[in-house]
Amino acid sequence: MTENIQLNSKGKLKHFLSIEGLNKTLLTEILDIAESFIGMNDQQIKKVPLLRGKTIVNLFFENSTRTRTTFELAAKRLSADVLSMSIATSSTSKGESLLDTIRNLEAMFVDMFVVRHGISGAAHFIAQHTSPHISVINAGDGQHAHPTQAMLDMFTIRQFKQDFSNLRVAIIGDILHSRVARSQIQALNILGAAEVRVLAPKTLLPSHVESLGVNVSHDLTSGLKDIDVIIMLRLQKERMTSALLPSESEYFKCFGLTEAKLKIAKPDAIVMHPGPINRGVEIDSKVADGPQSVILKQVSNGIAIRMAIMAMAMQKQGAAE
Amino acid sequence: MTENIQLNSKGKLKHFLSIEGLNKTLLTEILDIAESFIGMNDQQIKKVPLLRGKTIVNLFFENSTRTRTTFELAAKRLSADVLSMSIATSSTSKGESLLDTIRNLEAMFVDMFVVRHGISGAAHFIAQHTSPHISVINAGDGQHAHPTQAMLDMFTIRQFKQDFSNLRVAIIGDILHSRVARSQIQALNILGAAEVRVLAPKTLLPSHVESLGVNVSHDLTSGLKDIDVIIMLRLQKERMTSALLPSESEYFKCFGLTEAKLKIAKPDAIVMHPGPINRGVEIDSKVADGPQSVILKQVSNGIAIRMAIMAMAMQKQGAAE
Amino acid sequence: MTENIQLNSKGKLKHFLSIEGLNKTLLTEILDIAESFIGMNDQQIKKVPLLRGKTIVNLFFENSTRTRTTFELAAKRLSADVLSMSIATSSTSKGESLLDTIRNLEAMFVDMFVVRHGISGAAHFIAQHTSPHISVINAGDGQHAHPTQAMLDMFTIRQFKQDFSNLRVAIIGDILHSRVARSQIQALNILGAAEVRVLAPKTLLPSHVESLGVNVSHDLTSGLKDIDVIIMLRLQKERMTSALLPSESEYFKCFGLTEAKLKIAKPDAIVMHPGPINRGVEIDSKVADGPQSVILKQVSNGIAIRMAIMAMAMQKQGAAE
Repeated sequence: MTENIQLNSKGKLKHFLSIEGLNKTLLTEILDIAESFIGMNDQQIKKVPLLRGKTIVNLFFENSTRTRTTFELAAKRLSADVLSMSIATSSTSKGESLLDTIRNLEAMFVDMFVVRHGISGAAHFIAQHTSPHISVINAGDGQHAHPTQAMLDMFTIRQFKQDFSNLRVAIIGDILHSRVARSQIQALNILGAAEVRVLAPKTLLPSHVESLGVNVSHDLTSGLKDIDVIIMLRLQKERMTSALLPSESEYFKCFGLTEAKLKIAKPDAIVMHPGPINRGVEIDSKVADGPQSVILKQVSNGIAIRMAIMAMAMQKQGAAE
Repeated sequence: MTENIQLNSKGKLKHFLSIEGLNKTLLTEILDIAESFIGMNDQQIKKVPLLRGKTIVNLFFENSTRTRTTFELAAKRLSADVLSMSIATSSTSKGESLLDTIRNLEAMFVDMFVVRHGISGAAHFIAQHTSPHISVINAGDGQHAHPTQAMLDMFTIRQFKQDFSNLRVAIIGDILHSRVARSQIQALNILGAAEVRVLAPKTLLPSHVESLGVNVSHDLTSGLKDIDVIIMLRLQKERMTSALLPSESEYFKCFGLTEAKLKIAKPDAIVMHPGPINRGVEIDSKVADGPQSVILKQVSNGIAIRMAIMAMAMQKQGAAE
Repeated sequence: MTENIQLNSKGKLKHFLSIEGLNKTLLTEILDIAESFIGMNDQQIKKVPLLRGKTIVNLFFENSTRTRTTFELAAKRLSADVLSMSIATSSTSKGESLLDTIRNLEAMFVDMFVVRHGISGAAHFIAQHTSPHISVINAGDGQHAHPTQAMLDMFTIRQFKQDFSNLRVAIIGDILHSRVARSQIQALNILGAAEVRVLAPKTLLPSHVESLGVNVSHDLTSGLKDIDVIIMLRLQKERMTSALLPSESEYFKCFGLTEAKLKIAKPDAIVMHPGPINRGVEIDSKVADGPQSVILKQVSNGIAIRMAIMAMAMQKQGAAE
């Protein structure tokens, strides 16, 4: 067993890099703290001074409006100073290495890096090489993990379903390339969901997918039976042009979520999607905008979850010094 | 009569989308509140806490340094948090619809959208479809309206001329494509200007332009007689390459404002321009930088006007809840 | 003698455009004030309210992550509002002149411009033409000056070597094209360094370089003797492709700083570099990351120095009114 660099010597959260290696107590603590921030959004003044005077750097090597925006808003609502850097257009174009960029930002007394990168393991790499007082939050790395997305999904599930232990959750779509799915499966298993089922064509499943702790089905109709929570994944258009899939309309016919198919799941099943959605590709607009959809709730919860994770990482960091 | 979505049930400003449909009392209230912010600019600390904890999103689908910057400064001086999004480079490139982008931002508990868009009606569309607690400010939509520009122009006119009822105002240039001109004409008529005169070549006037409530002249020399306020419009270079105009120098000869032509207007006439100016195309540098020019005053007033409109929309929004 | 526009009528700093024309007392005052900010970086809340309600505009006509970021952080830690404008993508593309851009920003009641520009003298030009209440900070202009970089270098030298009067400093590399070197040489001479030595191939030295107050050597081995402080310059790749240099490896062999060559200098010599470094071109990684390197200290000190200079310029500006 290698030590978990996400935790400090007292077992408290220092970095947030992946769901893997965290336990049920810690995940539940994140959900509980996020809940305390949820009420804030209705207040006239949506700010707490928890991270006043702290500097958070958004290091986005991949573009992402939604994720970057929620991290930026979460940081501002914690009263932190935020610096958003789109790295493709910055010093690295002068040939500076990632490590030199990190070293330089460290030297400017920043307190936290929020990292999105196209390469799996990038956030881990930065956490391993950064100064001890700096926290690193993974905002998505390659096809590896997207743990804050998974946690906001867990938060949303708990909001609607309270207890995980009786829940059957279906994750539908491109499991193979999805960092979101990987993190969701881990979180659901740690939180004790009754079943995690993946529904996908064979070409969009990793080999030995069962070893992740899931049941597998290639048929949406039978696969949706008894399901409490449906998580749709975004289908990347680029998969279409590769040989993995026949056509958009063919995919929608087999794996697109329609009102008819939704009826197969439990009547009170909720429908989730990490966004942005492809209407008519993986999900019908009537379902996406329908009464069982909690897609926009997920977006809202994303801010509270990110506030919770940032506040926890910064606090434990302080306590560890 | 359709209801005016700009006003709440108590007739207070909720959105600010166009001058059309607003009355003299409301426009005057905007001018008065802006006046109370003007003094602030000379203070050591140029901030009021009116919008502390509020989140304002600048949604700029068209680029505009000047307008975006003044909105950003106005929001910061009201102590709001500002998020500036250049939408061309964001999620919409992943194929997300405008409405989905709006829905997602709403879900992040933002309080106001400041929208600039190349398509006429875009800000209206967003206001119609957004959550009831969100205010929308039109920062320019297609060739339709640019109401905050018109209001800062009215503010500037009042600053120098006090009363509108005796004023003869000439708007000169490309009326046909100008959202600024449309909003100015409406505001001047609502505020009771004695005359609004448009001076332009026939090719740069909309058909039935008189129905907007203006007098028309195609001759700058005779048209400038008795004028108190001269508003020059920017000539878009792209009009030149189209068949609408002969040449830059030809245009300047006929409709460019020179010191000689300025003398035709009243001796205390003021010269305005929404910027950025094309020196030597629609206006001579000697006039633009001369003693009768109030062009930079307009820029300064733009901040106070935008502070006033944002503060009013946010306040009435609160009162309506 | 032309008057120095950097100083107000009481001899206090108003603009910070170049080291030239400033005296030892003023440079020492900058270093002393920066020192008072250094401790702040270890505090939980890294903010002082010195510039609250002030608006600082970063006008970057050239891209620079490091410099822009440190100015932005410095401004935020002084509680100022910061507006970062990348001018290549802004109004100037609509054909607006530099002066019109400046006039418009002035009219928005900004308090300070931080200017980076590819043309020598750009910051001076703006300072000469801007309103009396606005301060201008040069963040690098053409091949002319980079005075805040020079001051953070002086700060770093003083941190490690206390007194300038006994110091022999070597500046190594492309002196010809380096605005950093020009400003460093001036600062070292004003602060009374015992010797400033430039080490470079003849093709990378300005003609009459001795008139700047330096000794010259073209041989790194003999040139490093008795040196207390080694300042490496970045070699711009584009010089390589021009006729000025044979090849990267040839340059490294003659002027690259290796551990072996470093031993020729005094045993307690420090190694500096303005960054970003070209590992294996002008400096070996073992030296850049070695115990004598203070390169990252320079980055850290950059924030304190910029806070000091911004605070001083803003304060004297106030006093002068």
